Amino acid sequence: MVYATADATAREKLRVGMVGGGRGAFIGAVHRLAMRLDDRIALVAGALSADPANAAASAAELGIAAERSYGDYHAMARAEAARPDGIEAVVIVTPNHLHAPVATAFLEAGIDVICDKPLSTTLAEAEDLVALARARRRKFVVTLNNTGYAMVRQAREMVADGALGRLVAVHGSYIQDWLTRPIDAEGHKQAEWRTDPTRAGQSAVLADIGVHAYNLACFVSGREAEAVAADLFTAVPGRRLDDNAHVLVRWSGGARGTILASQTSPGHYNDLSVRVYGEKAGLEWHATRPEELRFAPYGEEARTLIRGGHGSTEASRRVSRMPAAHPEGYIEAFANLYRDAADIIQAHRAGAAADAAQESLVPDVVQGARGVRFVAAAVESDAAGGAWTPASLAVDRDAS
Amino acid sequence: MVYATADATAREKLRVGMVGGGRGAFIGAVHRLAMRLDDRIALVAGALSADPANAAASAAELGIAAERSYGDYHAMARAEAARPDGIEAVVIVTPNHLHAPVATAFLEAGIDVICDKPLSTTLAEAEDLVALARARRRKFVVTLNNTGYAMVRQAREMVADGALGRLVAVHGSYIQDWLTRPIDAEGHKQAEWRTDPTRAGQSAVLADIGVHAYNLACFVSGREAEAVAADLFTAVPGRRLDDNAHVLVRWSGGARGTILASQTSPGHYNDLSVRVYGEKAGLEWHATRPEELRFAPYGEEARTLIRGGHGSTEASRRVSRMPAAHPEGYIEAFANLYRDAADIIQAHRAGAAADAAQESLVPDVVQGARGVRFVAAAVESDAAGGAWTPASLAVDRDAS
Amino acid sequence: MVYATADATAREKLRVGMVGGGRGAFIGAVHRLAMRLDDRIALVAGALSADPANAAASAAELGIAAERSYGDYHAMARAEAARPDGIEAVVIVTPNHLHAPVATAFLEAGIDVICDKPLSTTLAEAEDLVALARARRRKFVVTLNNTGYAMVRQAREMVADGALGRLVAVHGSYIQDWLTRPIDAEGHKQAEWRTDPTRAGQSAVLADIGVHAYNLACFVSGREAEAVAADLFTAVPGRRLDDNAHVLVRWSGGARGTILASQTSPGHYNDLSVRVYGEKAGLEWHATRPEELRFAPYGEEARTLIRGGHGSTEASRRVSRMPAAHPEGYIEAFANLYRDAADIIQAHRAGAAADAAQESLVPDVVQGARGVRFVAAAVESDAAGGAWTPASLAVDRDAS
Amino acid sequence: MVYATADATAREKLRVGMVGGGRGAFIGAVHRLAMRLDDRIALVAGALSADPANAAASAAELGIAAERSYGDYHAMARAEAARPDGIEAVVIVTPNHLHAPVATAFLEAGIDVICDKPLSTTLAEAEDLVALARARRRKFVVTLNNTGYAMVRQAREMVADGALGRLVAVHGSYIQDWLTRPIDAEGHKQAEWRTDPTRAGQSAVLADIGVHAYNLACFVSGREAEAVAADLFTAVPGRRLDDNAHVLVRWSGGARGTILASQTSPGHYNDLSVRVYGEKAGLEWHATRPEELRFAPYGEEARTLIRGGHGSTEASRRVSRMPAAHPEGYIEAFANLYRDAADIIQAHRAGAAADAAQESLVPDVVQGARGVRFVAAAVESDAAGGAWTPASLAVDRDAS
Repeated sequence: MVYATADATAREKLRVGMVGGGRGAFIGAVHRLAMRLDDRIALVAGALSADPANAAASAAELGIAAERSYGDYHAMARAEAARPDGIEAVVIVTPNHLHAPVATAFLEAGIDVICDKPLSTTLAEAEDLVALARARRRKFVVTLNNTGYAMVRQAREMVADGALGRLVAVHGSYIQDWLTRPIDAEGHKQAEWRTDPTRAGQSAVLADIGVHAYNLACFVSGREAEAVAADLFTAVPGRRLDDNAHVLVRWSGGARGTILASQTSPGHYNDLSVRVYGEKAGLEWHATRPEELRFAPYGEEARTLIRGGHGSTEASRRVSRMPAAHPEGYIEAFANLYRDAADIIQAHRAGAAADAAQESLVPDVVQGARGVRFVAAAVESDAAGGAWTPASLAVDRDAS
Repeated sequence: MVYATADATAREKLRVGMVGGGRGAFIGAVHRLAMRLDDRIALVAGALSADPANAAASAAELGIAAERSYGDYHAMARAEAARPDGIEAVVIVTPNHLHAPVATAFLEAGIDVICDKPLSTTLAEAEDLVALARARRRKFVVTLNNTGYAMVRQAREMVADGALGRLVAVHGSYIQDWLTRPIDAEGHKQAEWRTDPTRAGQSAVLADIGVHAYNLACFVSGREAEAVAADLFTAVPGRRLDDNAHVLVRWSGGARGTILASQTSPGHYNDLSVRVYGEKAGLEWHATRPEELRFAPYGEEARTLIRGGHGSTEASRRVSRMPAAHPEGYIEAFANLYRDAADIIQAHRAGAAADAAQESLVPDVVQGARGVRFVAAAVESDAAGGAWTPASLAVDRDAS
Repeated sequence: MVYATADATAREKLRVGMVGGGRGAFIGAVHRLAMRLDDRIALVAGALSADPANAAASAAELGIAAERSYGDYHAMARAEAARPDGIEAVVIVTPNHLHAPVATAFLEAGIDVICDKPLSTTLAEAEDLVALARARRRKFVVTLNNTGYAMVRQAREMVADGALGRLVAVHGSYIQDWLTRPIDAEGHKQAEWRTDPTRAGQSAVLADIGVHAYNLACFVSGREAEAVAADLFTAVPGRRLDDNAHVLVRWSGGARGTILASQTSPGHYNDLSVRVYGEKAGLEWHATRPEELRFAPYGEEARTLIRGGHGSTEASRRVSRMPAAHPEGYIEAFANLYRDAADIIQAHRAGAAADAAQESLVPDVVQGARGVRFVAAAVESDAAGGAWTPASLAVDRDAS
Repeated sequence: MVYATADATAREKLRVGMVGGGRGAFIGAVHRLAMRLDDRIALVAGALSADPANAAASAAELGIAAERSYGDYHAMARAEAARPDGIEAVVIVTPNHLHAPVATAFLEAGIDVICDKPLSTTLAEAEDLVALARARRRKFVVTLNNTGYAMVRQAREMVADGALGRLVAVHGSYIQDWLTRPIDAEGHKQAEWRTDPTRAGQSAVLADIGVHAYNLACFVSGREAEAVAADLFTAVPGRRLDDNAHVLVRWSGGARGTILASQTSPGHYNDLSVRVYGEKAGLEWHATRPEELRFAPYGEEARTLIRGGHGSTEASRRVSRMPAAHPEGYIEAFANLYRDAADIIQAHRAGAAADAAQESLVPDVVQGARGVRFVAAAVESDAAGGAWTPASLAVDRDAS
């Protein structure tokens, strides 16, 4: 077995800039850990904070040259587009409501986009971004990072290869406990913006974690929701947005299922999982034990497939750095997205033909928009007393 | 710790007769295993089969006197009611559609009832049985046997004692694989009647296993469904009844949740579970590992409570026969119901005051009817395109 | 699949008497639970306690006729041997040091023996019992009850059938916490006699639980210890006997391994396990989750075999009463031994040919003696500074 | 909670060179992944391969300037020591037998050492390295990388803080399957040198994985082996070195235990674990699920502590980059060692006082030598028929 540990220093690095992610921000630092692991990304510019002092200090800490630390993202898009050594892609790690305007600015400047999830806080923005990315022929990666796990990719491959037969049921779930108490009303900054309708969107729990469960279920099953019936609710009195969502799903291709999301479930930290059942087999994956994939062919005993182990396939081996049972985790999965993103963007900029297989593994603006569409449909269904509500994206409907 | 292993031979045994359960029947033999364990029950009469030869041979095997082996249950009810040493209770282990008529016959003869689940195949029958049992002042136990597990009883006690605080979410699930293939169309007898609308009722999957998930969720949480929104479907083409059910639930007292049931999920045999989340803690129990109860107080580490172990409470200790980690299982749980049933029926027939605490642990005709009501509501919701549909029993609504 | 739930009432029951097991005793009540489950045993006589009042009261509770409740086991053996309806087998559930004298009395009276473990507290007694049982041609079952678990029997069968190939390593372990504190010095009756050299033998931890680990490892692997190197020690200051044992083992046939036993390991109640590795596969079983057998063929993914499930074999199906994932446990395993013991003793008394396959599954006096031999060898090795010490039984050495 | 994700680009990086680790080598690439994660290390020189072409090509790939790619480690030590911008530390990732000579060359050149395990293949070399490092006052880190896991550090802290009370038993185990078949005789390069006495040392299984189990047990318990009694054996006929080791241990301070190592156990990939039992509590950690630490206080229920979760302590939080249940793994643990090593070496070179608490968490030359001593003692004991053999290091004996 050849591990994906080959060093990449000699390859030309992808030049990126970051919007958001200054000192004190959480997800920006996670992106930087992921960027560094495989040495394929050079962070050379940034508009790291709306606060100028924080922006400058953060840039200095990160080794970004002072003249490429910008006070706002518009200036950054303009200036970088004009430089011969300007960034090839922007990494967007702002609060949710800024994803769309920032991405728009860079797309219009001809710069590719790597954007955290959710793609946007409104469906209209999401659809506009799909259209704009296509019109400008720009690459647009949405870091729905769980798709980077080796065993998630293997699960997707097994489903696609027919190991489960015709699919019958697909379930996704993301359960946390961190909002069990009203910490958003007590000054917790991360909790505050995530439960603020003006910054998080229409549904807090779906925008924050539900889209991960939905996207994971889509990615593994190869399906999209055609319709949803949702029950959204707020467990903590006084909270401004929902913190729990129970959603019934009718998937494209005929399977049914559920998407559950909760931020008020003591005993769970980041308990993301997917279960897929087909007429020939079932499989199950949990983000808390990401190296393991449970696979049960009908009529045989259930097996525990281990990343790098005897039952691993090409899909997981390609992104394995370590032998079996030397566990890889969240950062490695995130780094797999960055490695693929670097390949895809560099190839595109070099005018090379796309590697369709690789591109299918990396969530793009359409997948991002599907997540936003799902949230909007669930909110609409809930408001309509749980009525079945269409959930497919216009671009998918057109394609089918 | 005093274990519940004290022998009971010296106590007067409860005299019972059985309807159904002849040679080749599955659940009747399970009931007899459960009856024998604690030596509190004497099986002295039976109408064991509609086939006279099977009935007689089965009775002989079980040591039932020939004159107390009856050709039909009407004759049995009449004759036993007339004997001075007649049965005190009848055990009903027929196919579902006969539960109500058989129970009716014995209630009218003044004989207490121990009936397998579901209580009946129609809601009207269930409501009639509630009324009849009350009018005749007869004890009526429904063997929703999962309530007999020691750690299920501990879970119920912990919820009732406020260990979870105000409840937020309650989820029940029962997942199997045995109907993944169309075995009902290929001569499998057990599968055949369970998917036949005339014998199983309106919903196969809910009547067969969904009621277990629902009843378990009710028992642990102390709640009932007020309304449901259901998506029922048939995974196997040509099957006459549903084999999967995804149900959203609004529980009495304000919690929300789901009940999932599937008979086409490879990798699961009898995977029944319940999860309850409150503002103070969460808990989780799986029938496949019934000795363990996961308990997670908010802000502390999750604990694994083991039956008989350091975190066990009175509720589980009372029904523990073995020290911790000498596992008890399905038969022991079932036997706990029979031991309680014997206590309750003997006390009632002796004119003693009821032990309300003990009676609350044993599902009765009302709990049985609630299960039937749940199935009916889910079927109605599904037919109405998933609309929220009232699910509470008339007798409960009257009481509230 | 046909489950082993067929009722046995019509069959002639095996008539047994019990020595020990009066009120307040633990293991006697466990034996009676196991006897009752399958309805094959009639308990008709007893010398239940050295205390006459307890003996009489206990007999009355158990429905034993007053004239068959004896004041001592000698009287019982004589009287029962003289009755035409006398007991066919005696069940010995006394403290360890009485096993040998009681068994001797009944063997000499021509009565078969079912004896709790360990067979005896000295090797000389054990060897005498082997010789006596052979001379008198009597059946002698030692209730090393873990051999009754369905998946333990399947594991043994898989090893015997070559699924693991040539064996390389065999490990047994039994870990508890109940003697972590000096409860034996504080009036705990069960702890007191188990740590008393005059009643428990030379090693407390090995006699009480180590023999279970050793016997389980022998049963599954089909091997015996040829030599051991032991480190025995006492964790609790002042305790009179050891409470921990770490033993290296050289098994017959060339494999190596360990036997670990501890009664001072917080976090474990009755954590008995066995692991066997061969050149073709490995397997692992834990008594705390007895329905599961982990099986890993080299070069393939590990599987979890479930009793009654798709990977179950004849060996486990024969003793399955319930479908997969309706868990069976400790009592059911114990009951399997009693059902087999009834078959074996009845066949023997009827002059029928022995069913060698069935007899090989039920620990007899030789297996019991091997356990005593193992304890003696470990004590001897420890006293000799851990020197490798022969551990095979004379009767086995003669045979080889 | 503040995560250890703060970027370090602005800090001066530690300049290192690498010996070994050219194209096709496994562990060198792992070290480089670990170095990159936190951006504290600059790899600026190397003698990456004995093959000049491979050395040059590997250096080019890694961005090492051609003039700092050396043909042999002696030249590298001389040249780098002479440069004003020379390396501050060397990273040694050669086969085992070269660890000592390479480390010696760099120590003598005044360069600090970061060396893979085992420290050396002979005890004499190990003791010489201890003496040399002390004489030259050089920092010497041995990358016994499992000490970098957050929950391993928390376990060590809990033991040190008395959460377990007086220790009674300490067990370490490392079980693999990769040498189950004779792949070393079939051209597998990694297997070949590891089972070659001239390159691996006296014991293959102990040098390769047993030292990890031993070191982990030492690190968590804070103890060293005083004496061992060992049974080493070769499961695969024809293999030149052992592939299995069963070792009894008497630990400093009075506890007993075992160290098991196997490379022929199907069903296990890299199954490293440690269990520690004290009079007040027990704990257990498995490298295959490194985010979880099982903790069982006597008399209470067992808890599962999760990195970053409610029961996490300062020791684990300090090295947590991610919130609970966003799993960190092997690379992150390895990177923790590198981050600490950079701190320690930079402080030392700057003449700052050592941070004793931090230094105690990073295995140094003494810990490395203890591992070599353990292997030597086990080999000696095995050769002496399993006799108890002293296992403490001279330097430790002197200190006590």
